[in-house]
Amino acid sequence: MKNLLQDRDAWSMENCSIARAFELIGTRSAILVLREAFLGARRFDDFARRAGIGEPAVAARLRELTADGLLERVPYREAGQRTRYEYRLTGKGRALLPIITALRDWGDAWAAGPEGPPVQSVHRGCGAPVHARLVCDHGHDVGPGELEAHAGPGLIEAHRR
Amino acid sequence: MKNLLQDRDAWSMENCSIARAFELIGTRSAILVLREAFLGARRFDDFARRAGIGEPAVAARLRELTADGLLERVPYREAGQRTRYEYRLTGKGRALLPIITALRDWGDAWAAGPEGPPVQSVHRGCGAPVHARLVCDHGHDVGPGELEAHAGPGLIEAHRR
Repeated sequence: MKNLLQDRDAWSMENCSIARAFELIGTRSAILVLREAFLGARRFDDFARRAGIGEPAVAARLRELTADGLLERVPYREAGQRTRYEYRLTGKGRALLPIITALRDWGDAWAAGPEGPPVQSVHRGCGAPVHARLVCDHGHDVGPGELEAHAGPGLIEAHRR
Repeated sequence: MKNLLQDRDAWSMENCSIARAFELIGTRSAILVLREAFLGARRFDDFARRAGIGEPAVAARLRELTADGLLERVPYREAGQRTRYEYRLTGKGRALLPIITALRDWGDAWAAGPEGPPVQSVHRGCGAPVHARLVCDHGHDVGPGELEAHAGPGLIEAHRR
């Protein structure tokens, strides 16, 4: 298979998956709302208290993330109150965990204060720290210099200029 | 060790590594410039041609990413021309690859068109596709429901309201 990196101008980035993913989750407030969802927040008040971005931004992000299928709205009702809604991660939303974890790993390594990272994510049961790592389908750890880019089924050839 | 998820209001997010990482790389144009750096771009013209975000945005992002230590400026000179600079990923910049890969994985799975992902990232040598996966330091694959959050050295306790 041809390594696309050898002729980068031969293919187009118009359907780039990185850009598409970033379009859906690439605002600071969306990331903070998603972080709180992974930390267990479900109700508006919990998101608002913990995300630190103001209630209007929380409301807007919850609405957008629900419309994009990353969260789902589930009704609940406490005694004597009207029906309200809580927000739960869908499968599409839960699949963002490697992105959130990779951001945390990098922030821990390169942007934490002198006291060190605030939180460690660990594997329940075995207790070992969890990280987002590059692994190939044969199970090898992969370093940054060991990657090639090959054509996928959706590759669009570029119009040469 | 205590699972912090059981009392989320007991600790503060003010030094959150996810937010800090996102502050440095969390604009669409920064992600696209970094993508091109990982794909091999070094010179301004290459970034500008491939990132698709306009020359002023490319120039601004290259300047910021260099100031933040993710890229380094290296002089080069072609025969008969003045000295110019190219941009190379530093160690701090190369360490972003799991984030970029996790974004690509998610976009491939959840945001690609019906024709499928445009590009496949493969392990040089073994040829197997590469993904960003959650792995614990004991080598176990970790699913979204198998995580606990434990206090790190920089944990800041929250002021209760």
